[in-house]
Amino acid sequence: MGDRVLSVVLNGVTGRMGYRQHLVRSVLAINAQGGVDLPTGQRVRLRPILVGRNAAKLAEIAERHGIPDHTTDLDAALADAEIYFDAQVTPARVDATLKAIAAGKHVYTEKPTAETVADAIRLARAAEETRVCNGVVQDKLFLPGLLKLKRLIDGGFFGQILSVRGEFGYWVFEGDWQAAQRPSWNYRAEDGGGIVLDMFPHWAYVLENLFGRVVSVYAQVSTHVPERWNERGQRYKATADDAAYGIFELEGGVVAQINSSWAVRVHRDELVEFQVDGTHGSAVAGLRGCRVQHRSVTPKPVWNPDIPADTRFRDGWSEIPDNGEFDNGFKIQWEMFVRHVLAGTPFPYTLRAGARGVQLAELGLRSHAEGRRLAVTDL
Amino acid sequence: MGDRVLSVVLNGVTGRMGYRQHLVRSVLAINAQGGVDLPTGQRVRLRPILVGRNAAKLAEIAERHGIPDHTTDLDAALADAEIYFDAQVTPARVDATLKAIAAGKHVYTEKPTAETVADAIRLARAAEETRVCNGVVQDKLFLPGLLKLKRLIDGGFFGQILSVRGEFGYWVFEGDWQAAQRPSWNYRAEDGGGIVLDMFPHWAYVLENLFGRVVSVYAQVSTHVPERWNERGQRYKATADDAAYGIFELEGGVVAQINSSWAVRVHRDELVEFQVDGTHGSAVAGLRGCRVQHRSVTPKPVWNPDIPADTRFRDGWSEIPDNGEFDNGFKIQWEMFVRHVLAGTPFPYTLRAGARGVQLAELGLRSHAEGRRLAVTDL
Amino acid sequence: MGDRVLSVVLNGVTGRMGYRQHLVRSVLAINAQGGVDLPTGQRVRLRPILVGRNAAKLAEIAERHGIPDHTTDLDAALADAEIYFDAQVTPARVDATLKAIAAGKHVYTEKPTAETVADAIRLARAAEETRVCNGVVQDKLFLPGLLKLKRLIDGGFFGQILSVRGEFGYWVFEGDWQAAQRPSWNYRAEDGGGIVLDMFPHWAYVLENLFGRVVSVYAQVSTHVPERWNERGQRYKATADDAAYGIFELEGGVVAQINSSWAVRVHRDELVEFQVDGTHGSAVAGLRGCRVQHRSVTPKPVWNPDIPADTRFRDGWSEIPDNGEFDNGFKIQWEMFVRHVLAGTPFPYTLRAGARGVQLAELGLRSHAEGRRLAVTDL
Amino acid sequence: MGDRVLSVVLNGVTGRMGYRQHLVRSVLAINAQGGVDLPTGQRVRLRPILVGRNAAKLAEIAERHGIPDHTTDLDAALADAEIYFDAQVTPARVDATLKAIAAGKHVYTEKPTAETVADAIRLARAAEETRVCNGVVQDKLFLPGLLKLKRLIDGGFFGQILSVRGEFGYWVFEGDWQAAQRPSWNYRAEDGGGIVLDMFPHWAYVLENLFGRVVSVYAQVSTHVPERWNERGQRYKATADDAAYGIFELEGGVVAQINSSWAVRVHRDELVEFQVDGTHGSAVAGLRGCRVQHRSVTPKPVWNPDIPADTRFRDGWSEIPDNGEFDNGFKIQWEMFVRHVLAGTPFPYTLRAGARGVQLAELGLRSHAEGRRLAVTDL
Repeated sequence: MGDRVLSVVLNGVTGRMGYRQHLVRSVLAINAQGGVDLPTGQRVRLRPILVGRNAAKLAEIAERHGIPDHTTDLDAALADAEIYFDAQVTPARVDATLKAIAAGKHVYTEKPTAETVADAIRLARAAEETRVCNGVVQDKLFLPGLLKLKRLIDGGFFGQILSVRGEFGYWVFEGDWQAAQRPSWNYRAEDGGGIVLDMFPHWAYVLENLFGRVVSVYAQVSTHVPERWNERGQRYKATADDAAYGIFELEGGVVAQINSSWAVRVHRDELVEFQVDGTHGSAVAGLRGCRVQHRSVTPKPVWNPDIPADTRFRDGWSEIPDNGEFDNGFKIQWEMFVRHVLAGTPFPYTLRAGARGVQLAELGLRSHAEGRRLAVTDL
Repeated sequence: MGDRVLSVVLNGVTGRMGYRQHLVRSVLAINAQGGVDLPTGQRVRLRPILVGRNAAKLAEIAERHGIPDHTTDLDAALADAEIYFDAQVTPARVDATLKAIAAGKHVYTEKPTAETVADAIRLARAAEETRVCNGVVQDKLFLPGLLKLKRLIDGGFFGQILSVRGEFGYWVFEGDWQAAQRPSWNYRAEDGGGIVLDMFPHWAYVLENLFGRVVSVYAQVSTHVPERWNERGQRYKATADDAAYGIFELEGGVVAQINSSWAVRVHRDELVEFQVDGTHGSAVAGLRGCRVQHRSVTPKPVWNPDIPADTRFRDGWSEIPDNGEFDNGFKIQWEMFVRHVLAGTPFPYTLRAGARGVQLAELGLRSHAEGRRLAVTDL
Repeated sequence: MGDRVLSVVLNGVTGRMGYRQHLVRSVLAINAQGGVDLPTGQRVRLRPILVGRNAAKLAEIAERHGIPDHTTDLDAALADAEIYFDAQVTPARVDATLKAIAAGKHVYTEKPTAETVADAIRLARAAEETRVCNGVVQDKLFLPGLLKLKRLIDGGFFGQILSVRGEFGYWVFEGDWQAAQRPSWNYRAEDGGGIVLDMFPHWAYVLENLFGRVVSVYAQVSTHVPERWNERGQRYKATADDAAYGIFELEGGVVAQINSSWAVRVHRDELVEFQVDGTHGSAVAGLRGCRVQHRSVTPKPVWNPDIPADTRFRDGWSEIPDNGEFDNGFKIQWEMFVRHVLAGTPFPYTLRAGARGVQLAELGLRSHAEGRRLAVTDL
Repeated sequence: MGDRVLSVVLNGVTGRMGYRQHLVRSVLAINAQGGVDLPTGQRVRLRPILVGRNAAKLAEIAERHGIPDHTTDLDAALADAEIYFDAQVTPARVDATLKAIAAGKHVYTEKPTAETVADAIRLARAAEETRVCNGVVQDKLFLPGLLKLKRLIDGGFFGQILSVRGEFGYWVFEGDWQAAQRPSWNYRAEDGGGIVLDMFPHWAYVLENLFGRVVSVYAQVSTHVPERWNERGQRYKATADDAAYGIFELEGGVVAQINSSWAVRVHRDELVEFQVDGTHGSAVAGLRGCRVQHRSVTPKPVWNPDIPADTRFRDGWSEIPDNGEFDNGFKIQWEMFVRHVLAGTPFPYTLRAGARGVQLAELGLRSHAEGRRLAVTDL
């Protein structure tokens, strides 16, 4: 049985994520390494078909990487492919993906899968009814720091897990005296911006995969910086939320309190950190690193304002060794999806799972507006 | 005009706080330093009259420190004094303090001033109507770390303050294989335990004095460790909350998110830390220290999981120097109260302010029970 | 019920251990702290009666510490006392202690309790038949390092314990160009010397109390330095063993391999160290400190001589915090014995337990002579 | 006299050791450096003939390194060669090597040379009777750490050597929540696994070459981790020993106590360390480094549990400088063997020496089974 080539439509590779993470570091990297190994021993190489609205940009990318196929005609591209991948801006995602499903193609998309739960569910249902393979990017699960955290959980390190506290954020410059490091549409609600829509889908799958399904959500949402300057140096009104203070109850009673903000300065080791506390030990995991403190080395601090805290608390934590190589998470997930399509191996990150991410964002915003904790129902 | 002696009833000095912070490190320390200076130049020494229910314990303390006056008869003691101070267990506070007010004495008490808002208000009103001087202990305001934070706020360091995030907590041992470092009643609701009742009154005055009045509260409350071992090694059921995840809106739109927990391990520099972010700068303040990052030295991190975070974010913060000696906060407040009584200088930490602390705890618990954000009304 | 005074014969306090650890740091220290607390609330002070063969030395010690009672007449002393304590040289211990038992006194002695198992058993039986309280010093159990190790075991840190490796030893100077730091009789078999007789009784109770009874022993014994210089600078033949390489099997299958030597130089943190390895974690405990490595932070070294070992293995271990005060172990054991005598509280370190220590030394030496592993039978 | 080419059959280079250490880092590296210098000034380049059972794998290796000769036919290969080298799995070694000897070829093999002493002797005798040059790999002798130790011994640093204590080991992961870093056959007796068979041959030549022949052995052997997970994630029963506590007597009275274990965590500077104590000094040698303490700087510790050990014992040792480059030991030994074959220079690492390694492993296991110390007789 010889090697096999799988044709893949890549829609939206002119954007930063689509180009860098999906085209270059996943699809092309897979080919450079000789393809994806199937359980049968067969190797699968990918034939990318670039699709987009800007023909010139597409042509330039295609030439740079020696890719023969690129077009602005999605229908033509689909006719020629087995998998459709979508990394377009969110408002364009649903229609294009539904078209691919209707054409009987397997579909794989960036998150959030839609702007509303209704649309996200519609997408998931279409894929399920048509019985095409379907998946959504959940790259954070493959970050070395979270993989180490998973290793700890699987190894029973924590005893019973009690709580999770997460801090995500950094200072996004206003754009006046220093240019902003994120696109301005992120700060406009009318353009699909907002930190809840951006980050709550991540928290949904991170919490679900590591600790358990979210059963309720409460969020306090804010626009701390109401005025910003865009890519052309023009002042604009920030209409979207730039900070969200979320409290999630998980099945089993764990509480997860996660702050997300583009208006904080970083006094941490990494841009995102989760502290997990359990009866037998605690961990602080970031993107890369993960430190632990077992109950056997837990100090017994006594609250005494009379004397300076001479315990150097951070020194009582130990860094977890890598004990292995961590591959690029986007590529890993591409390999998983290819195996899922061709060999039927499991792929839990479905469009339905993606819809739960959209749901958490939607409920988070509603919870803030109504001032109450909302149950997260099964979809 | 010679020196003056002020007689003070100290009720509840057989407890740790009453004995150590109020009798020894405040009242006796004031006398040891020669008294309190009034604006008039007069010096005031304090004559403590110890009151309690255990005559033997009182006698022992009195003998240890050479204090002539101690009694189990509160009425007799009051007849002889000008100020009544209460550091009893909370359930005993209201009646004793009302009696002192009825006797026309100035009153100063530990927090929480009562178990319910109704009682706390009743106490405040009684003092106001009788026009006695009245005050409540708000010691955290005088911690060096928070004084430095106040100094920053007063100096306009932050530009506009956007948010406050606080972490308070440490691991309180369960008591089985290592003895607990806090008394077991703290973990029993029926004995007045619970972290909300203990800490929310602190958060109330800290937020109010540093950032502005609290206008709404939402809290998620939990009993993470449901079973503990008491001082005699016996297992008991923990019926009180040991963790609270609180979100407070302040007048002016600042959001304060504060976690309080006895079931976390400390991965911080200090047992409590507040991060304050403003348009012009940020600060992280603990009990003792306070570090800042001005917007001029704020890094511009780009979210990029491809590469290890080699920015050492913490190194971009600067420690604020002491630039002075910080005296014991309990003693400072005693001196302020004595001056308030004898010289009419201001004392903002009134029983009414204390009632707002009780109110915040009560609303926090109710907010959790009802699953909704509650407005904090004027009392 | 008032306080009580307990008369105690101390025989052998002219030696270093008897004087320093038992008289000064235990008996006199107990009186200085106000006595031993009984469960009834009663306090017991000790009245020492010093006994020895050198009246002048005794008188000098008695005067130095203001002790009225001292004599060279053991019988007279016994008539006046309730407890007999023996810290004499080993050959003198059995007869004196049997005499005390015959007089119906409770007996407490240093280790080893006798020079032979037969004598040790005779002593234990005499005490058991006469039904006097009896005990033997097992001070190492109360070293902070071993108490922390015990805390780890009790807390389930190790998962299943697999092995114990112990290193005890340091260089005892030969006595020629630098004076020896131990008495010369330690190196003469004919005077009761030898490292097996000195240390195996310690290993017996340490292993038994922490990990489980010893079920077999194999020892390789050596006299590495055959010639030494005594206290008067005279050369003598070292006839006793100065090193023992022991392998102990414990009930439950744990292997304990312990080297004891007076002819090694110390490349460790402490003079004695035990490394305990278990399925879930490992610890290295010394006299004072104890470091751990949990399986979650265990590195995965690959044996590769091509590249320098750049893992700093020791940095992957965490020091256990004290989380409490550690009192002098000799005094703790005296307090336990006093409570055992007067209040019937348990005291597991009996003369029979002491006999097991003598047995392990005797079997160790025999195992070496016969070149085979020997079972440790119940006494 | 021009350069010379020596044909060498390499059997078993598809395994990790054969490929990496012998083919790439020895044979090809020798050619890359221009060959082996003979005392005559002549340079000898090696012509490898790869032999194995998997033609495809052989072809791939041959192609990767541009090696013309590779075959699955050992007889054909031997006909064409002067030296036969064997790095096959142990059970295949004896037959192939005997065949080479019968063909009059010089033979060089990995250790252990056979599975039983009888076979190992048969191999040595065959080579001796046929008078072919013969050798066995003893790579550890050329580790920088052991070369430094040898340098110390040769320089008389130790005075009289008294004892050697060795610790070899690290934690080999069980394979469930983290993959094992060694092949699963190492843990199955039926597949030739076990730490005694793997490591005792090393200890045999290390002890013999550095300190003197082993005259007796006692070993306690254990399977601490009875259940592991293999390369495919399947659970299997670990039937081979994973730890051995060995005591070796050497000629001259030195005692060598060496622990070998795959079930310990590393609290050392290197994965293997030997401490050597002598009358004039001590050393601790690892793979790379070697530290010493001369008797002139030896501290005189006094056993005193009253006070914390404030002596930092490790600081009293000095690291030995490299004072030169250490070449790869495998290559050095290949060069020695080539010179031995072509120029008759000495080569002490004969098949007979190799048989002593097999003998020590065999006696070690028997000693454990019989519970007694066994003499190591001359072969």
